[in-house]
Amino acid sequence: MSAKPLRLGLAGLGTVGLGVVKIVQQHADLIALRTGRAVQITAVSARDKTKNRDADLSAYAWETDPVALAKRDDIDVFVEVMGGHEGAAKLATEAAIASGKDVVTANKALLAHHGHGLALAAEAAGRVIRFEAAVAGGIPVIKALTEGLAGNQMRRVMGVMNGSCNYILTRMQNEGLSYAEVFDAANQLGYLEADPNLDVGGIDAGHKLSLLAAIAFGTKVSFDAVELEGIGAISIDDIRLAADMGYRIKLLGVAQMTGRGLEQRMTPCLVPADSPLGQLQGGTNMVVLEGDSVGQIVLRGPGAGMGPTASAVMADVLDIARGTRISTFGQPAASLATPVAAQSATAASYYMRMTLLDKPGALAKIATCLGEAGVSIDQMRQYGHEGDNATVLLVTHKATRADIDHAMSRFGGTGVLVGAPVALRIEEV
Amino acid sequence: MSAKPLRLGLAGLGTVGLGVVKIVQQHADLIALRTGRAVQITAVSARDKTKNRDADLSAYAWETDPVALAKRDDIDVFVEVMGGHEGAAKLATEAAIASGKDVVTANKALLAHHGHGLALAAEAAGRVIRFEAAVAGGIPVIKALTEGLAGNQMRRVMGVMNGSCNYILTRMQNEGLSYAEVFDAANQLGYLEADPNLDVGGIDAGHKLSLLAAIAFGTKVSFDAVELEGIGAISIDDIRLAADMGYRIKLLGVAQMTGRGLEQRMTPCLVPADSPLGQLQGGTNMVVLEGDSVGQIVLRGPGAGMGPTASAVMADVLDIARGTRISTFGQPAASLATPVAAQSATAASYYMRMTLLDKPGALAKIATCLGEAGVSIDQMRQYGHEGDNATVLLVTHKATRADIDHAMSRFGGTGVLVGAPVALRIEEV
Repeated sequence: MSAKPLRLGLAGLGTVGLGVVKIVQQHADLIALRTGRAVQITAVSARDKTKNRDADLSAYAWETDPVALAKRDDIDVFVEVMGGHEGAAKLATEAAIASGKDVVTANKALLAHHGHGLALAAEAAGRVIRFEAAVAGGIPVIKALTEGLAGNQMRRVMGVMNGSCNYILTRMQNEGLSYAEVFDAANQLGYLEADPNLDVGGIDAGHKLSLLAAIAFGTKVSFDAVELEGIGAISIDDIRLAADMGYRIKLLGVAQMTGRGLEQRMTPCLVPADSPLGQLQGGTNMVVLEGDSVGQIVLRGPGAGMGPTASAVMADVLDIARGTRISTFGQPAASLATPVAAQSATAASYYMRMTLLDKPGALAKIATCLGEAGVSIDQMRQYGHEGDNATVLLVTHKATRADIDHAMSRFGGTGVLVGAPVALRIEEV
Repeated sequence: MSAKPLRLGLAGLGTVGLGVVKIVQQHADLIALRTGRAVQITAVSARDKTKNRDADLSAYAWETDPVALAKRDDIDVFVEVMGGHEGAAKLATEAAIASGKDVVTANKALLAHHGHGLALAAEAAGRVIRFEAAVAGGIPVIKALTEGLAGNQMRRVMGVMNGSCNYILTRMQNEGLSYAEVFDAANQLGYLEADPNLDVGGIDAGHKLSLLAAIAFGTKVSFDAVELEGIGAISIDDIRLAADMGYRIKLLGVAQMTGRGLEQRMTPCLVPADSPLGQLQGGTNMVVLEGDSVGQIVLRGPGAGMGPTASAVMADVLDIARGTRISTFGQPAASLATPVAAQSATAASYYMRMTLLDKPGALAKIATCLGEAGVSIDQMRQYGHEGDNATVLLVTHKATRADIDHAMSRFGGTGVLVGAPVALRIEEV
């Protein structure tokens, strides 16, 4: 083997960082065989050097400052697994590019917020930024989309990409528990971020969706244009009623290019219970890629954890070791279009649940509001009364979110509505 | 764009070849944007120039002989979508390599039989052979395994990779039809190869498995060592009884490295009905990749057809246009180990169905044969009598295929067996 070793600077020694150390150490021979060169860690950085990490790091130089690590002359690739979209992670990534390093990152937040600028800088410097680990953990979805389906014009990209949310929804479904009960349990088990809203508010999953959308549709990454709705308002009633009709509720990301622009949504949706997305249980992730030639490809696997995330980081490292050079978002950053945001322009059937006063004409008043907003009703069920109230479930024919919102804005004026109505999109998968 | 165009010579103008023409013509701009260079077809070959193909081929030079096409000075990549593992496809691929062309092929049979020699020749000549379209149609599984999971030591690779077989088994299951009935229907619909045994005998799927195994375990492709068993002996009774116990029967390929060597099987197996493999319906393909770091990744998509297969061919073409250079089987061909074949060395539970004479002690005699062969019984069910006979269903504890075969070889001597017993592996997925 004559090629020079590829030297990594590893910023971050949390779970993922230690997973990377483990693979580099345990599979040195396998990696050299597959890439034709040795892959070594030269230097590492983390805040606390004294922490017991159950790994032999003695051969690696230590930097407390990741920016200093990024600038070292003895690394070829800056591997960023620190997290955080401002501060040190951003500065260090910029420093790495400025000093001629390739970058491998697991940092979805950083790329969702600053990906376009970083990609421009990297390409100007002749460096690559790879981020397989940033989306759907161990699933090689960035590679599948950027390379494996590169001959396709993509039609739609979908995904369940936050394992914690799917864990919560699945436990509610399977055990009949309330959102609050399962949320607390998940939080105690350490399944949620320090700020749980990153998970249950759909922000983390929205970051991932915005990265997939940029690749799929050749647009600048545009997280601010993602329509975000978390799972906090999903009740066990909705889960049960949806199941009655053959659906499951998922926090589903959908990106598609429409005649009106790029639609990006990360919202709770109903999907058929017998579809791959509907069958997805627990913390597992799933991404659905639809292209004009290939049709539909479904990828399923672990969305988090030491091994899966480190596996994805190492896939990028091995690509660089093999000499693979691909634009961050699959085409030169300067050629990425500025997307026109089109929130929920595509029509869909909607599931609607509401509580009505049980008096004559109540349902007719609601139906009138819908009809005047141009929303027609496909199915309607009235469930048992609770005191003076009745639960009503509607499935609409295809309508836009704007029409649904318009109709709902008029429900209040009917005087028959109790509490707030729920409207969830039924995504055709 | 300053890079020179990448020039393709396309051998074969059947469904897949015309799919490639369509993508190259329709997505020229998209491809140039993604790869940084134009991708053009320079010349094509097929047997009959006069055939109406519903495509404008007028800009392409025509060769009747694919070997002549492969040798042309005005092509960079030889795209082989002719099929056949001897004769013209082999000669032309060899000629392409010898004359300095990269090769993209959809030909699983060619690679299963001659992949090692072709890879050696290509690597000696500094050329690449890519074959995404040869395995599981549009699913980018070669890329996922060779690149996306390259940081893993693979544990096991599994797949339902013949859509026709899965179509037949699914229709038997869903409609209660016999194998013969569905086979005839599939044949009339043109779903089967001219020699249907390539499909239902497991040969086509076995070719694909042998290619995945070579990449996953760093071994010379070794199709002859694949344990092959087709679906022709699967009865509707087995499908029903398996379903009763919560299983589905699939023609499942499994490759894994064991302490005794490389095990490669393409045989009908039982898998849990609620697993992704068990839920797979119709002609869709599924591949399951298990690595030491990543855990389990499941890929699902169309396994055949013009669009999906052409999508996979074009992924390889775009990789070459982007400058990606990867060894045929993921590491230098000369470093691939000669696998020790270990057929069914791993133990599993087995489903066994047999018909016994309905007389006292019949079951005890069978149980004795099993016990003496070291096979213990987990579950046993006796079904309704037909005349003097009774159907008996057994699920064994874990046993090797050799032990099962040994036990079955002794059933005949009991004098209570009617017809041949059936034994199907229950694969843990």
